[in-house]
Amino acid sequence: MTVRLEALGQRSETVRRANLSAIVRELHAGGPASRSELVARTGLTRSAIRALIGELAAGDLATEEPPEPQGTPGRPSPVVSLNPDGAVVLGLEIAVDTLAAAVVGLGGYVHERVRIDRPSGHTSVETIAADLAALAAAVRSGRPVNETLVGVGVAVVGVVRRSDGFVSMAPNLGWRDVPLGEALAAALDLDAPIWVANDADLGALVEQRRGAAIGGDHVLFISGEYGVGGGLIVDGQPLTGVAGYGGEVGHLPINPNGAACRCGSFGCWETEVGEGALLRMAGRPPGGGRPEIDALLSDAENGVPSALSALDHVGRWLGIGLAGFINVFNPRLIVLGGIFGRILPYVGRTLDDELDRRALSAPRRLVRIVPGTLREDAPLLGAAELAFEPLLVDPAGWLVPRRGRLEQASA
Amino acid sequence: MTVRLEALGQRSETVRRANLSAIVRELHAGGPASRSELVARTGLTRSAIRALIGELAAGDLATEEPPEPQGTPGRPSPVVSLNPDGAVVLGLEIAVDTLAAAVVGLGGYVHERVRIDRPSGHTSVETIAADLAALAAAVRSGRPVNETLVGVGVAVVGVVRRSDGFVSMAPNLGWRDVPLGEALAAALDLDAPIWVANDADLGALVEQRRGAAIGGDHVLFISGEYGVGGGLIVDGQPLTGVAGYGGEVGHLPINPNGAACRCGSFGCWETEVGEGALLRMAGRPPGGGRPEIDALLSDAENGVPSALSALDHVGRWLGIGLAGFINVFNPRLIVLGGIFGRILPYVGRTLDDELDRRALSAPRRLVRIVPGTLREDAPLLGAAELAFEPLLVDPAGWLVPRRGRLEQASA
Repeated sequence: MTVRLEALGQRSETVRRANLSAIVRELHAGGPASRSELVARTGLTRSAIRALIGELAAGDLATEEPPEPQGTPGRPSPVVSLNPDGAVVLGLEIAVDTLAAAVVGLGGYVHERVRIDRPSGHTSVETIAADLAALAAAVRSGRPVNETLVGVGVAVVGVVRRSDGFVSMAPNLGWRDVPLGEALAAALDLDAPIWVANDADLGALVEQRRGAAIGGDHVLFISGEYGVGGGLIVDGQPLTGVAGYGGEVGHLPINPNGAACRCGSFGCWETEVGEGALLRMAGRPPGGGRPEIDALLSDAENGVPSALSALDHVGRWLGIGLAGFINVFNPRLIVLGGIFGRILPYVGRTLDDELDRRALSAPRRLVRIVPGTLREDAPLLGAAELAFEPLLVDPAGWLVPRRGRLEQASA
Repeated sequence: MTVRLEALGQRSETVRRANLSAIVRELHAGGPASRSELVARTGLTRSAIRALIGELAAGDLATEEPPEPQGTPGRPSPVVSLNPDGAVVLGLEIAVDTLAAAVVGLGGYVHERVRIDRPSGHTSVETIAADLAALAAAVRSGRPVNETLVGVGVAVVGVVRRSDGFVSMAPNLGWRDVPLGEALAAALDLDAPIWVANDADLGALVEQRRGAAIGGDHVLFISGEYGVGGGLIVDGQPLTGVAGYGGEVGHLPINPNGAACRCGSFGCWETEVGEGALLRMAGRPPGGGRPEIDALLSDAENGVPSALSALDHVGRWLGIGLAGFINVFNPRLIVLGGIFGRILPYVGRTLDDELDRRALSAPRRLVRIVPGTLREDAPLLGAAELAFEPLLVDPAGWLVPRRGRLEQASA
């Protein structure tokens, strides 16, 4: 079976692993597919698909079902699905005023999910890590003890180094230079790698994989919370920058003589369009969170002038900033998450006017602006996607039917 | 020789072409290399390298020379070079006040180059296309009539659609919606594809391939001319956006109540840091071009206050904008081209101060800011690189010894 292709300089094992990866990625993001569809989407031959699916099924990662009988002639092609119990990840999220955890299976199936409130403001990393460990234990309590845990993905509302989950800044948590990855490793005590990333970067990842931007090649995701975060997809890939700090769109200087920003600068975009700015402008407590936003939107519905003018201000500055991103990135799609998705119906016209004035006409004509579809859970589900990455890159390493072996070992 | 790997789902022909491409890219960007170095850099086996180099040599694209004798034991490895006469491209550039043309050979060897002044301001596309055709004829006049011309690359100071070279806006030329690609095809009348792109995007490409940012994975190139252009390298690849309009960093709104910009908006970055802004601030004619910039820098050298304060203004706003890009992109390197490279010695401290105040500390610590090394010719050489792309993607298509065939045909 091991064919060596010295003359071609590539070995078949590398090719086999790459092909397994292509199939698993396709099924993970696109859902169940017939063998014929897989042939069309991956460019692999029918016989290669058959052999590789066989391997995935033997390794507990996929199942094949006979297709629904159809009216068309010819033998129908079996339908292949990933097995959501074959491998799972743990997704965790540290948001401004909530914590969340989920067990997500291969193919994106959410087995368990929980979200709890947390007091906003400064909290020690140890407290948060302990709370997350408790949540993790809760969502995993109903799951088989020997299931394959690929990894742990963590979304955090802060500026994070990807390599080790070191948080250089998270004003909503009162953190500066906090070793979150390390603290979580100690608190969770699991035999699985932990990956930490910025919440908005992960929101972008999951909106592109399963949400408003499926398969999008050039996408800007921006999320309005107390802070403003962003994630960029460039040529189909997330833009992380050198160390994973990329995407801090909230800290684009947009009004350099504007208000002081929590980052230490002045007139960053989030000082004009963040939740705090919106609430303050409407005469409400800037740290009031979701209840105050709900009240403000209800005021807007009733035509209360202070609410309408606050929304108008945010819509205008949202347009100014987005114009810049349209000029620099030439994106096909801009996905608005968090409060931006919620306020879009109220600010759409102002936003459009501003884009017409500010953006270059050629890229302006090509972009669509839509609300996110995964709402509050986008970062949590994005964290799960992040944790699946090692399996998606090399599924061959996860084929061994571990459960069987372990049961045998303990028998 | 043609081994079919049905079970692996990949055919050897695809692998061979990909491997040829890997070798040619390596030699084109990195220069001559020994076979051993190619083994190390491409990950291909020694026997594969030998076979593929043989093909390239037979196809007139590469040559092998015995190595310099060394003091080290073991048989030294032959040195492989691309043949600069084996295939060439034509590079063209439309700048604010010059036109340029070059014949560039495989490996980046500049065979011929010429640059002429052009009257700045509005010029018809037909006039410019005719002038470029004359320049092209001039640089090609000393070359073999039957040489392999891979394509024509064109750098233009404007917002361009990559697919067909349609210029949606070029204020320095007085153009809006001008079919440059079409006009050039008619004027040049060559049997070769024409690729048009924005000058700063191409500057970024060549600085990454042969200049200040060799091999850089996350690079921002910004170029100050009358307008301000930019090019981004993300994960080693140029960011073009959906249609090639990406990189218009000069039109980032940075001072939304600022001066009117030529693009129709207000307070774009170029209204604060462009050549026009710098000259105006120093009490000089904003359209004065290079002679006025030379005079201003000489004033600065002599401590003339108006020159120093104009440079200080530009340095400060340069820092504000770059801080935004550092926060959004987390780049490793920022390359300053055009006047930005020239003024860097005078504004370095102001720029640093502003970055310290405005950029997030984590990505700030990781970035280096350097002047470009290819200076005025960066866009022209970048245009040549663009035209080589089809050969770099699939050198197999260029292996036929065309010259021999043509000579035979005409004999």
